[in-house]
Amino acid sequence: MTVLRAGILTIGNEVLYGQILDGNAAFLGRELQAQGCEVAWRRTVGDRIPDITDAVKSGLDACDVLLATGGLGPTSDDVTRQAAARLFKSKLVLDRALLEGIRRRFAARGLRMPPCNRSQAMVPDKAVALPNPQGTAPGLLFRQGSKSVILLPGVPRELEAIWEQTLRPMLAQKSGRRTAVKTLRTFGLPESALADRLRLVEKALPAGCLAYLPSCRGVDLRLTFSDRSAEAARTRAGKFAGRISRALGDSIYGQGQETMEQVVGRILTDCCLTISTAESCTGGLMADRLTDVPGSSGYFRGGVVAYSNQLKIKVLGVRPETLRRHGAVSRQTAGEMAAGGRRLSGSDLCLAATGIAGPGGAVPGKPAGLVFLAVSGPFGSIVREKRFIGGRRTIKEWAAQAGLNLARLYLAGKGRLKDRT
Amino acid sequence: MTVLRAGILTIGNEVLYGQILDGNAAFLGRELQAQGCEVAWRRTVGDRIPDITDAVKSGLDACDVLLATGGLGPTSDDVTRQAAARLFKSKLVLDRALLEGIRRRFAARGLRMPPCNRSQAMVPDKAVALPNPQGTAPGLLFRQGSKSVILLPGVPRELEAIWEQTLRPMLAQKSGRRTAVKTLRTFGLPESALADRLRLVEKALPAGCLAYLPSCRGVDLRLTFSDRSAEAARTRAGKFAGRISRALGDSIYGQGQETMEQVVGRILTDCCLTISTAESCTGGLMADRLTDVPGSSGYFRGGVVAYSNQLKIKVLGVRPETLRRHGAVSRQTAGEMAAGGRRLSGSDLCLAATGIAGPGGAVPGKPAGLVFLAVSGPFGSIVREKRFIGGRRTIKEWAAQAGLNLARLYLAGKGRLKDRT
Repeated sequence: MTVLRAGILTIGNEVLYGQILDGNAAFLGRELQAQGCEVAWRRTVGDRIPDITDAVKSGLDACDVLLATGGLGPTSDDVTRQAAARLFKSKLVLDRALLEGIRRRFAARGLRMPPCNRSQAMVPDKAVALPNPQGTAPGLLFRQGSKSVILLPGVPRELEAIWEQTLRPMLAQKSGRRTAVKTLRTFGLPESALADRLRLVEKALPAGCLAYLPSCRGVDLRLTFSDRSAEAARTRAGKFAGRISRALGDSIYGQGQETMEQVVGRILTDCCLTISTAESCTGGLMADRLTDVPGSSGYFRGGVVAYSNQLKIKVLGVRPETLRRHGAVSRQTAGEMAAGGRRLSGSDLCLAATGIAGPGGAVPGKPAGLVFLAVSGPFGSIVREKRFIGGRRTIKEWAAQAGLNLARLYLAGKGRLKDRT
Repeated sequence: MTVLRAGILTIGNEVLYGQILDGNAAFLGRELQAQGCEVAWRRTVGDRIPDITDAVKSGLDACDVLLATGGLGPTSDDVTRQAAARLFKSKLVLDRALLEGIRRRFAARGLRMPPCNRSQAMVPDKAVALPNPQGTAPGLLFRQGSKSVILLPGVPRELEAIWEQTLRPMLAQKSGRRTAVKTLRTFGLPESALADRLRLVEKALPAGCLAYLPSCRGVDLRLTFSDRSAEAARTRAGKFAGRISRALGDSIYGQGQETMEQVVGRILTDCCLTISTAESCTGGLMADRLTDVPGSSGYFRGGVVAYSNQLKIKVLGVRPETLRRHGAVSRQTAGEMAAGGRRLSGSDLCLAATGIAGPGGAVPGKPAGLVFLAVSGPFGSIVREKRFIGGRRTIKEWAAQAGLNLARLYLAGKGRLKDRT
């Protein structure tokens, strides 16, 4: 069985001119891939009838199934229905059952249907209406030989409901293949260093199965495998994920959508340990991220954002002598901040960060981006020196992620982590 | 002069298959519109050389300028450079200055350049390299007659930096029309309430000139006007911005890309006042946002994230009696946190937040989303009760934005703000 070729057409000026992000196309891309389809074609056009008809024609040439989203609403700028009627030489006919359904949706909210919603019950006579359990505009399915064009509303929850109820089962039947996606999240090695370590694994991998996705949270490695059954695809993805894990060791911090703060939270919960933070350059971002996890109040005691030297001394107990001799941005200050934060909060661990977020504040020998991270806890203390580049927010993001990663490695190593940079 | 026709080509399996949202195409769409260009063509293709060359050819037919993003990284799945070299019958030549720049970027982080980054210094001999102030891969500009194809890296901050430094000035020169975009940022009123207040202004506005853009930082109002000259467009936008400002008063906190933390920082700087934070439910997010502003160390002293009651008592001096009688999530605790944070840090103002970020933690009478915000400072103390809905992160975001807004109104009102909810 050959792979089903699918196309995605997004219709709407608000997408074309970037007023909104195209979450619908992303949703359809993921779902089509999971059904073993190839996304062979993807375009975006504005709300103009000739642009829409041209794009639908070209999509039909290139694909077996074309999914178009947007422009089915009740207002004057919604022209997809008319464009399709023109292209398929179809008349718009009132569907009384549909009209009744739309009226009932308004009545359920205690409202009268505004006249303009009547247009949503106009169905091209060559189309099949696909029920929309979440809204007034139905999907519209046109067939041309063995190919199909499906028009979907642009409201995400309506599109997703029609997908779940009608399209996913329909495509699962048509497509002979299933796809498994597995993501491994890494931190600490740049993309190119990962690629060097994965040279051998990559040789054994079919082309196009491995993607590197860098961001300031690290590099995600995404494995994608298609096979006759979902299980066969998952097995192959699992096999290569295992090989990559062995090659990269503890540079991998999580899988799928798992965040660093979730991973740290899970280890703390498993070990029955608590944590606190003592932050300077990260400005509260490490605490913010730790508290993004539901239930984090079970292990997060609190934190101090000691931006001024006065607070470093008064609240965290950093010695004035240390600040004078080594400066606020130093290995020694980071260590004393972590120790002081631990004493103050009574937590098992304290994670500290001090550095220069930039763009100002650099001094000779201490450039913007220089950050010291420290962990103090039951397995001793460690300090790490890091250098990041980028704007202020980027440096904060890198430093916070590196700090959380240091806490992860400290907990995983249980004291085996040596105090070296 | 005719309108310049622009095309946007996104390259990358991760976009095609919906693993990430296409923020780059949205950014370019908005920016091209602001330069008075028509976005006449927009497509997405995967990381395959024939798909890329086909798309570039078709884009060149349809547009005057084609902007392509993605696939310029150092790893094996990045093939845009090779595709373009093939299409433009160009040889890849090592650019030694570029290679040196890439080496220096790694050296600045104390790292050796991995061998595979060398590929990013390979420039097609028919292309001009556009400097990338934020990363290793330069942009690449090819000319064909009067038309241009520009390849840009997929990392948003790199693409945006090349746009600002090179492309925006270049397109401003080419395009015959100018568009002025003016954004007014509001907080505190829902979209429908804003629309009610702006009914009269909207009647006077040409259709399509005003967009409402809601998010958990408030509702941005975007005015877009096109005209023959930038000045004419700006004058019209300015006139309506003035009318909207008068209608909405202090619900407008800023303009353009200005953030709430920048506005608060500017007022503090102007008044020579300092601030600190005392946070529970926001978990450090208010401190994080205040410290995102370069130079914030001039007015931000520091903050405490007092997640546990013990820290609220020990560090912020909240009375155990207050916690026992009113609970940690109460008007009284918020007030004592603000007063205590001010004493501790010696700042002029302290901004406090205590609430239930959810999804757990709700008790009868105190649902998830209930948040008390307080400001203590030279003009007295105020406390506000708020109720937000959404997931944990959304509630944190709303609470932090509302907290910063309260500090803004407190400073602007200089004590005229009454202590009512």
